[in-house]
Amino acid sequence: MKAADFASASPSAIRAMIGRGEWTGPTPGMAKGHVQANLVILPRDWAYDFLVFAQRNPKPCPILDITEPGDSEPSIVAPGADLRIDLPRYRIWRDGELVEEPTEITSHWRDDLVGFLLGCSFSFEGALLEASVPVRHIECGCNVPMYRTDIACRPAGRLSGPMVVSMRPIPASLVTRAVLATGRFPAVHGAPVHIGDPALIGIEDIARPDFGDAVPINEGDVPVFWACGVTPQAALMASRPPFAITHAPGHMFICDPKDSDYAVF
Amino acid sequence: MKAADFASASPSAIRAMIGRGEWTGPTPGMAKGHVQANLVILPRDWAYDFLVFAQRNPKPCPILDITEPGDSEPSIVAPGADLRIDLPRYRIWRDGELVEEPTEITSHWRDDLVGFLLGCSFSFEGALLEASVPVRHIECGCNVPMYRTDIACRPAGRLSGPMVVSMRPIPASLVTRAVLATGRFPAVHGAPVHIGDPALIGIEDIARPDFGDAVPINEGDVPVFWACGVTPQAALMASRPPFAITHAPGHMFICDPKDSDYAVF
Repeated sequence: MKAADFASASPSAIRAMIGRGEWTGPTPGMAKGHVQANLVILPRDWAYDFLVFAQRNPKPCPILDITEPGDSEPSIVAPGADLRIDLPRYRIWRDGELVEEPTEITSHWRDDLVGFLLGCSFSFEGALLEASVPVRHIECGCNVPMYRTDIACRPAGRLSGPMVVSMRPIPASLVTRAVLATGRFPAVHGAPVHIGDPALIGIEDIARPDFGDAVPINEGDVPVFWACGVTPQAALMASRPPFAITHAPGHMFICDPKDSDYAVF
Repeated sequence: MKAADFASASPSAIRAMIGRGEWTGPTPGMAKGHVQANLVILPRDWAYDFLVFAQRNPKPCPILDITEPGDSEPSIVAPGADLRIDLPRYRIWRDGELVEEPTEITSHWRDDLVGFLLGCSFSFEGALLEASVPVRHIECGCNVPMYRTDIACRPAGRLSGPMVVSMRPIPASLVTRAVLATGRFPAVHGAPVHIGDPALIGIEDIARPDFGDAVPINEGDVPVFWACGVTPQAALMASRPPFAITHAPGHMFICDPKDSDYAVF
């Protein structure tokens, strides 16, 4: 079975399958049309700084749900789910260093841990495709290219860092459509943060992304940049909390709401 | 001088006048077109619960700025301003009881206090008027009527409570216009939470608001309900933090950004 075979399965059925340990792969393509989320788990002591950082930088850090300390159920986006087992793969961080990539985190759970679920670009890519705007890295079957910029996030407590953006080359005639289609979804990164010349936001070489894969930019394409969910994780890891857990890249939490539930109009 | 005489003054000039103690009255009508904000100041120990509550209930609790603990400058919405002196009147709360209404709070300030500025309905009322939708309580020269509903807010830590809504009677032919005009502003309460029969959201007598003033509902009007910034303050006061400071009703903080800066399209 591959992820696309579960395109029409329900989020709860997929979470249950993952919770039973029967799926440990990436989640793109599963439960199509439903929101997939980035996971960050932090001790309560760090949760306030993270939440203020997210509040001050809502474009890269759109928070969809926050658990009560010690409670692993994200009761807003997936009542009954368990953040300790319902993702296919996790990353364990100690003092900012990646130490382990387990498929469940029951043995790591503590009474002071707070789980944050953040919106991811899969939601607005669905909106682009529905608006007949092509998404290059999907066509290429690779990861989206991501770049550090010289746009500083607003710092909060112990957290600071540059905004990380993802880039999609868009044919010039479709750029306004791409802006309008994604602008409907401010809760999942929203409209682009920059259109055109990469140098204006401090990107030196568009062919060499800091994360993900390079994609071809064709004659007549305009590079369009969206705030990226890697931003909060990068700021967090740079500040080296003693303990943190995140999802492994591409191994997301599948939420009950549909992408369209987050549209503002 | 009355508030309307300062309609075209800049936010910083008005804040400076207030900071010098030269204006202690209500702020509606001042610096027209600029965002006015509700103020909540809490000890750091309570700030996390409040922030999670706001995050879980974004329609009634739209946060515009959060200060670092002990710092009274709201550096996002008004760099250089001072929350201790730049509002015309404050309320001091101890154990959930109102104890004082001073015109500045310098002597009450502490190193562990966090200031929250929250969007208020003045912003979307401007959008209604621009869309040629009449606003009854402005026509009547009174306060907007507000009601407790049976819509439960999502609780967070020590905070819980019902959603409080404000009501504006809108001529039936203009209701869709009112929805679209305010839906552009999700950061300041956004689109209505209910249209029509007050009983459906637990309001027994529309003629007897829980806060503010009753307004006439004319033949052909539909009552339209928006999430209200009284919600977070009510939840907070019900949970009786040992110490809190808020603005006095109508005596708001005047921010630099314009209402239109918060429009999503």
